[in-house]
Amino acid sequence: MSHDSGTLSNMASVVHISFVLLVFELGVSSFPVGQTPDESPSCGYESCHVIKPGMLNVHLVPHTHDDVGWLKTVDQYFYGDRNNIQHAGVQYILDSVVDQLLKNPDRRFIYVETAFFYRWWKQQSDDMQATVKGLVAAGRLEFVNGGWCMSDEATTHYSAVIDQMTMGLRFLNDTFGHCGRPRVAWHIDPFGHAREHASIFAQMGYDGFFFGRLDYQDRNRRMASREQEMVWRASESLTPPTADLFTGILPNGYNPPEGFCWDQSCDDPPIRDDPDLEDYNVEDVVTRFLVIANEQATVYKTNNIIMTMGSDFQYENANLWYKNLDKLIRYVNQKQSNGSRVNVLYSTPSCYLQELHRANLTWTLKRDDFFPYADAAHDLWTGYFTSRPALKRYERISNGYLQTCNHMEVLGGPTSRKGVFGVGDSYTMKKAMAVAQHHDAVSGTEKQHVANDYARRLADGWARCQVLVSNTLAALSGSVAPRVYCEHLNVSVCPLTESSSQFSVNVYNPLARPVSWWLRIPVNGTAYTVTDADGKTVDSQVVRVSQATVAVRRGRGYAVSELSFQVRAPPMGYSTYSVSLLQMGPPDSPRPGVPKDITNKFLRVTFDPETGLLSSLHNLETKQTVRLSQNFYWYNASDGNNKDSKQMSGAYIFRPNSSTPFIISKTAKIETVQNSVVQEVRQWFSPWVSQVVRLYADSKVLELEWTVGPIPVGDDLGKEVITRLDTSINSSGVFYTDSNGREVLQRRKDYRPTWNLKQTEPVAGNYYPINSRAYIKDEKDQLTVVTDRSQGGGSIQDGSLEIMLHRRLLYDDVRGVGEPLNEISDLYPEGLVVRGRLLLSLSPPAVAADTHRPLAQEVVLQPLITFTDGKLPPNTRLEFSGLQAALPPAVHLLTVSQWDQDSVLLRLEHQFEAKESKEHSCPVTVNLQKLFTTLNVLGVAEMNLSANQWKDEMTRLDWKAESAEKPLPKTKGDPSVWEVTLKPMEIRTFLLRCLTALVCHTFIHEMLSGLWLKQSIYATC
Amino acid sequence: MSHDSGTLSNMASVVHISFVLLVFELGVSSFPVGQTPDESPSCGYESCHVIKPGMLNVHLVPHTHDDVGWLKTVDQYFYGDRNNIQHAGVQYILDSVVDQLLKNPDRRFIYVETAFFYRWWKQQSDDMQATVKGLVAAGRLEFVNGGWCMSDEATTHYSAVIDQMTMGLRFLNDTFGHCGRPRVAWHIDPFGHAREHASIFAQMGYDGFFFGRLDYQDRNRRMASREQEMVWRASESLTPPTADLFTGILPNGYNPPEGFCWDQSCDDPPIRDDPDLEDYNVEDVVTRFLVIANEQATVYKTNNIIMTMGSDFQYENANLWYKNLDKLIRYVNQKQSNGSRVNVLYSTPSCYLQELHRANLTWTLKRDDFFPYADAAHDLWTGYFTSRPALKRYERISNGYLQTCNHMEVLGGPTSRKGVFGVGDSYTMKKAMAVAQHHDAVSGTEKQHVANDYARRLADGWARCQVLVSNTLAALSGSVAPRVYCEHLNVSVCPLTESSSQFSVNVYNPLARPVSWWLRIPVNGTAYTVTDADGKTVDSQVVRVSQATVAVRRGRGYAVSELSFQVRAPPMGYSTYSVSLLQMGPPDSPRPGVPKDITNKFLRVTFDPETGLLSSLHNLETKQTVRLSQNFYWYNASDGNNKDSKQMSGAYIFRPNSSTPFIISKTAKIETVQNSVVQEVRQWFSPWVSQVVRLYADSKVLELEWTVGPIPVGDDLGKEVITRLDTSINSSGVFYTDSNGREVLQRRKDYRPTWNLKQTEPVAGNYYPINSRAYIKDEKDQLTVVTDRSQGGGSIQDGSLEIMLHRRLLYDDVRGVGEPLNEISDLYPEGLVVRGRLLLSLSPPAVAADTHRPLAQEVVLQPLITFTDGKLPPNTRLEFSGLQAALPPAVHLLTVSQWDQDSVLLRLEHQFEAKESKEHSCPVTVNLQKLFTTLNVLGVAEMNLSANQWKDEMTRLDWKAESAEKPLPKTKGDPSVWEVTLKPMEIRTFLLRCLTALVCHTFIHEMLSGLWLKQSIYATC
Repeated sequence: MSHDSGTLSNMASVVHISFVLLVFELGVSSFPVGQTPDESPSCGYESCHVIKPGMLNVHLVPHTHDDVGWLKTVDQYFYGDRNNIQHAGVQYILDSVVDQLLKNPDRRFIYVETAFFYRWWKQQSDDMQATVKGLVAAGRLEFVNGGWCMSDEATTHYSAVIDQMTMGLRFLNDTFGHCGRPRVAWHIDPFGHAREHASIFAQMGYDGFFFGRLDYQDRNRRMASREQEMVWRASESLTPPTADLFTGILPNGYNPPEGFCWDQSCDDPPIRDDPDLEDYNVEDVVTRFLVIANEQATVYKTNNIIMTMGSDFQYENANLWYKNLDKLIRYVNQKQSNGSRVNVLYSTPSCYLQELHRANLTWTLKRDDFFPYADAAHDLWTGYFTSRPALKRYERISNGYLQTCNHMEVLGGPTSRKGVFGVGDSYTMKKAMAVAQHHDAVSGTEKQHVANDYARRLADGWARCQVLVSNTLAALSGSVAPRVYCEHLNVSVCPLTESSSQFSVNVYNPLARPVSWWLRIPVNGTAYTVTDADGKTVDSQVVRVSQATVAVRRGRGYAVSELSFQVRAPPMGYSTYSVSLLQMGPPDSPRPGVPKDITNKFLRVTFDPETGLLSSLHNLETKQTVRLSQNFYWYNASDGNNKDSKQMSGAYIFRPNSSTPFIISKTAKIETVQNSVVQEVRQWFSPWVSQVVRLYADSKVLELEWTVGPIPVGDDLGKEVITRLDTSINSSGVFYTDSNGREVLQRRKDYRPTWNLKQTEPVAGNYYPINSRAYIKDEKDQLTVVTDRSQGGGSIQDGSLEIMLHRRLLYDDVRGVGEPLNEISDLYPEGLVVRGRLLLSLSPPAVAADTHRPLAQEVVLQPLITFTDGKLPPNTRLEFSGLQAALPPAVHLLTVSQWDQDSVLLRLEHQFEAKESKEHSCPVTVNLQKLFTTLNVLGVAEMNLSANQWKDEMTRLDWKAESAEKPLPKTKGDPSVWEVTLKPMEIRTFLLRCLTALVCHTFIHEMLSGLWLKQSIYATC
Repeated sequence: MSHDSGTLSNMASVVHISFVLLVFELGVSSFPVGQTPDESPSCGYESCHVIKPGMLNVHLVPHTHDDVGWLKTVDQYFYGDRNNIQHAGVQYILDSVVDQLLKNPDRRFIYVETAFFYRWWKQQSDDMQATVKGLVAAGRLEFVNGGWCMSDEATTHYSAVIDQMTMGLRFLNDTFGHCGRPRVAWHIDPFGHAREHASIFAQMGYDGFFFGRLDYQDRNRRMASREQEMVWRASESLTPPTADLFTGILPNGYNPPEGFCWDQSCDDPPIRDDPDLEDYNVEDVVTRFLVIANEQATVYKTNNIIMTMGSDFQYENANLWYKNLDKLIRYVNQKQSNGSRVNVLYSTPSCYLQELHRANLTWTLKRDDFFPYADAAHDLWTGYFTSRPALKRYERISNGYLQTCNHMEVLGGPTSRKGVFGVGDSYTMKKAMAVAQHHDAVSGTEKQHVANDYARRLADGWARCQVLVSNTLAALSGSVAPRVYCEHLNVSVCPLTESSSQFSVNVYNPLARPVSWWLRIPVNGTAYTVTDADGKTVDSQVVRVSQATVAVRRGRGYAVSELSFQVRAPPMGYSTYSVSLLQMGPPDSPRPGVPKDITNKFLRVTFDPETGLLSSLHNLETKQTVRLSQNFYWYNASDGNNKDSKQMSGAYIFRPNSSTPFIISKTAKIETVQNSVVQEVRQWFSPWVSQVVRLYADSKVLELEWTVGPIPVGDDLGKEVITRLDTSINSSGVFYTDSNGREVLQRRKDYRPTWNLKQTEPVAGNYYPINSRAYIKDEKDQLTVVTDRSQGGGSIQDGSLEIMLHRRLLYDDVRGVGEPLNEISDLYPEGLVVRGRLLLSLSPPAVAADTHRPLAQEVVLQPLITFTDGKLPPNTRLEFSGLQAALPPAVHLLTVSQWDQDSVLLRLEHQFEAKESKEHSCPVTVNLQKLFTTLNVLGVAEMNLSANQWKDEMTRLDWKAESAEKPLPKTKGDPSVWEVTLKPMEIRTFLLRCLTALVCHTFIHEMLSGLWLKQSIYATC
């Protein structure tokens, strides 16, 4: 699957899911789940220690929480490098835990982060690997969660989360068989919890989910009412219990109870049980433990309680923990002979979960999410929704890159990985994206050098993918002309197009339907001829690059102008445009002054002639009009000098000094560009805030391209910059945000659905994560904003929607990162400049999703643009589509990725919610055999969402929830093996047995024609 | 041997030195050294890795340095308690090292401190003990040094050092046989090195000695001249090579070279050898290592160098060290195939020593010592010579208590440990004394709470000994009257004697000759009758307790007066005095005003009538007279605000702000007591400094009993209080101090014998440790001061001798202890008050030792005083001696201690140096069979000094030294097995096969008379 130094070929060789070829008629039930055949494991629930039913059973769960980067980079954490920053070395943790597990078969350990486990595993000897397999098979070492990382929940996109989970779980499956499959999801550290994550986990087959952080008010209420364990119904579209997830809140975050931390990093007194030495303390320890256990039992429902015995990077010297835990268990249980009713045991989250399940109780039902997270009255973790906006954007772009790279690997077959442009792979990017999902990565809550490392990894990944993409495009197009990738088009930098008089532009569209797109290519000529794949001329215009862009690009390019034209590309395919210089010379300058409006056939946008600000937005099709003014403001970040609280704004925390933001400028300096392709109103608010209001011909969407930075802090005031849209929409204290880019949740001001909120932070306490979109609406109008990255935002006033764009802070917020969020780089020594886009659409609420659903996917999976210099060779294939036809609008091609030599992972997604669209919120059926053009799909097996179980073998524990709804009867299955039906918000995951890519394609079509398809059993390709 | 919770009986059961009964004629050569019979070990030198002769061989020595108390108590260190003070847990170190040694047979580890190893060992399972025995037998785990602790060298008394070494080495011998016997002495941390320690180590059979700290000037010179390894000739009396010790200075103190510390407590980069991860650094590490190794080789003589890979409490997680060391060795040695000439190997100090020995070089000869230690120009470690004077005194008293306790255990036999007063033991005291020898214990350089712990342990030890002593005295005396121990006689506190009208006083003399002693017993009557064991009346006097004593005792007693009288006790025996009240009423008050003189038949002491200070001292026998004035002063402790250096005075460092001390008072307030028993001139210098100049009838010694404290620091000035004796003696810049209470070294002002000193601290740089005595002399007069504890002192002016008595400091001196030396207790909340005695004798130099040798031993082994209330029962045995006769004056009974059920450890010491005394510096012969009264000595075997080897099997490596002297031919052996000859400064150690104590004694004498003695072979008693 990859040439990445033998790693994946190794993975492939130990693959445990044995793929059995299907004939068309064969049902999926015959797919066996792989096992380690020479062992008869008693892992999972079978390996749990028995409890004592009449007693309070205390499940001690030894664990380590290993951040996949935070204060140190992931590799520094792995090796234990830079221990001066933080003492943490995961290689030693795994060394030590394995040693200690071997000393006492009663001991248990759970491991979570496969990014680390994978690094460790490949350095181990065969003997050690065999030893560890034994521990896993006996349930003594158990994987929980098991993704590549423990993803952030506020700022991640669901597609990247599914990818990273799939990668981690696949490694465990390949390495350990079904004993390596985690039963429990475990998000003990993320700073708030997304409903979409719960939905994903449910669909991945997890039996339960545990976390540590939730609003302190919520926790207090739940403790009092013993509602710390519940059933989370995580989708409004999917039929229960598809997205139901049993969810438990851990008693001490993820730490041990006070006084019982025996890690080398802790100072709690060890158990001193030698009466010959001073300070014998067994009685004291046992007494303290019994008090804590009995108190904890009062806030949970069953006679089983869990204690997390570990914390960040603990168990580097596991002996300290286990030696004392062994003693604790011995001495506490000894008390039973004196009448104690407390029984302590080594356990795991799944063993604890099993006992909860056996209790056969009815649990409360949770339907909303756990945002925002506050750990005290003025300590709202809503700053990280926006922290490091450039990293957040780079991560989002990279997700698109990776999907394209995956497509190219499938379309190109082996040639993609080793081709005319050398050796490439998608695996480097997969790993880079997977670590970037970590809750201190894309969240923006890591140290600066670590943020740099994540970005570097993504860049490395993309460099490896570029080779792969070039190889495939060469194979698909028949042209070996070198491909040039211009990664700074957003600031009008592309050395090739700036200097070339003739070049071509290849536009690859990773979506399953044709898209139109507007390109703006940096050039130095005044007129160009652009022709499409059919040789037809395309309307193009040259406009002067804005001064804001010149300022931002810092000498990296020298383009005077941008060449704009519209492109189209077929589904999962490309189209090629040729560009020739017609005329050199300076371009027309933009026109100064405020225009009355800009308009196309769909939209009209008006401006206030006094201020230069937007004043209204009109949907010309629907004849809707809303008042819309928009401006930029900054909140003064609290420096902690406040009578209510000393909390400062920082990477995690958003705490404005005042609920009223400062306006940056009441008026904007304006210039306007208007031509047949694009209309731009360029607004300058200050030297560090500018914006282009852009309307392309034929676009139903208004683009606001903002540029913010360097945020000045010479006044010693930290600043959190927002843009605010103030409209005439009667939003009644309500607005809407998506969860991880999928289902939308209603947000009501100063309100939480599950408890009586005491609001203490009028702004920060009303901020929510916006992953891909937010909207406000009334009965008539819905204004939807699609973002290009995750951001925080809120609706503080009716009709208003604000989005935080950038933050620059002078203080650390005392949550561990130990740095103020003050981004500076070599290129931007006076502070980072960030540019991004908000896409606005105005629709009637009932049809708004018809626009924002596909629009948001276009932003996530934007076309990949590659350039070749000069004229293309004559036989170049200028257009290609990997799909036989566009998929229906409701269907999103979520994943097409090479799985192993002869199979491909396919995920099809219904991208509409159940009641969202009259037109699209209905089941659609896709024929898998008729999907691809170059891939012959010979067999198919449906998997769970994470592709580590056959779908029909995924049997989850069932939980009773307090709910009026009765589970619907199971609806009819798919019409046939090949025709799969997708219901709203459903994602279906398939392993396709394919004859992949060009070579096979040619082979099949030219050599065998239909022969194989008529046979009932197929041999390996 | 002891009833200490089974520990020693366990030790006895695994004893490896099998004792074979001797007939009188049998030579000692037939004593076999014990082995672990079922193993054929290749430990010691045989187990070393082979070196590569043509290369630079780098011996990596993994080690941990485990202070037996410092910032935490010894038990806190063992368990890893109070890790908030310092992260350190020895139990885990040993757990971890054993695990890691098992992972790779090439790995080596050395362990040093038996106090810790013993604690760990007794908690281990049989399996683990067997495993560790295997490691020791294979030389993979090697003990070095091996004493109970790593003793301090400046402030310890040789007898306590020998005891603690013996205890540690015995445990190793009993547990591991000869593979447990350390070949190397290892004092990597003590702050300067005593010649007597080197002599002791040589006599204990060590082949070499390594240390880390020496004067920076000395080190620089030795590095330049490659003289960091040498032969230390550590005695001027003992025939070489008896006290010759090969001595090496370690390259980095005891730390690893910079950048190569891989402990969990270090931050150096680990070796990152996975090319798939970031920051691959193998080349960098190897290059840095080669540079360091080659540089180090330039300052040593051979092609072998040593690197200490460890430090304080390291290896708690040994995996970190070994994993990286394994890699270091692999990658550095891999370079040999590219021509590198550096070979790295796991090693131990003995393996390194073996290669030095094989080099067969001639080494420079060292004859003086390594005091004082300076690590920079103004950083003289001469403060700790005096730090915590009360603890130093308590340790010294406890040493005497322990010797007495040992005697009692031998004299009392099993009855002593379980008798009429219950269960007692000497082992608690032995352990307490052993840990008190540690270089952060008696040295005074520990934290206050740790100092309290040492004192508590000694008190506990003494409490256990009191039971033992009471049991034996009951058995010996035939009286079961309860014994009362008054431990505060120095401040005139003893509830029994204060209230009783009739009591008796038992005086036990642990010396081998009869002693006289003057008692001062707190009473409230005005007249008493005192009768001796023969019923004869003894002259007694009652004097009023001084106001200084009343102030110091803080309400612990209410005695108005002290009853003084002289007592005598036979060798290793007791005598009993009866005291009856004659008359109540107030005593006479002392006479105010300065007396002209006080005098007895030996001495006359005059006073200056103006000042009240001493003015002269006359020896009436020898007709010597010296001018002698004495007063008290304080140095202002540096607070670090100094242009030369920021060093402050602290627990370790003495750094006066000025070389001129402040006088406390030029005049003293005086009162005088004069009677037939004692004459006292009581001097008050200030509310916090007073003194009693005391001359007993018949005493040749003038006693100066000083009381200092609470030292006032309200002026924010740290104070270091001295007393200074200024005399007319023409001392020519020279004075003399003893080394650990034995041989005396000459000290010359601003001079070191082995290098050209650049003196930077005129006072602190001329301070030396005084363990038991110091003197100044000229051709005619020698004034010797015998101290009651270790103190620092110097002779800054000719004819002057100053001794630092007490220190109270306001700053930490940045050597780790992290506390200012500012002793405060519940009883002395405003600062500790300390009382002590200096004993002065004036003699012609040629005969001075005749006085000060026995005098110093009397101070160390003072009689034990016990009281019984009321009349003694009529049949009480009032006098007893354990010796058949007094030993000759030159012979000191250093050790009489029960070894196991039927054997006794005996050490006889010649206490004079070779040229010290015309009368006593000659060989003396003692007949072991005629030694004891109640012990029948049936066999004898001579041991090395530490009693872990048969003397005749002690074969040490021979080293060639640059010396004109040729070793003398071996002198003739002892006249017979029983008659042993002692030459000056010789200590001889014997295991006696005895029928011990009362029961056996009775049994033998009454039942068997001479029968057994005539048999040639004896069965076990």
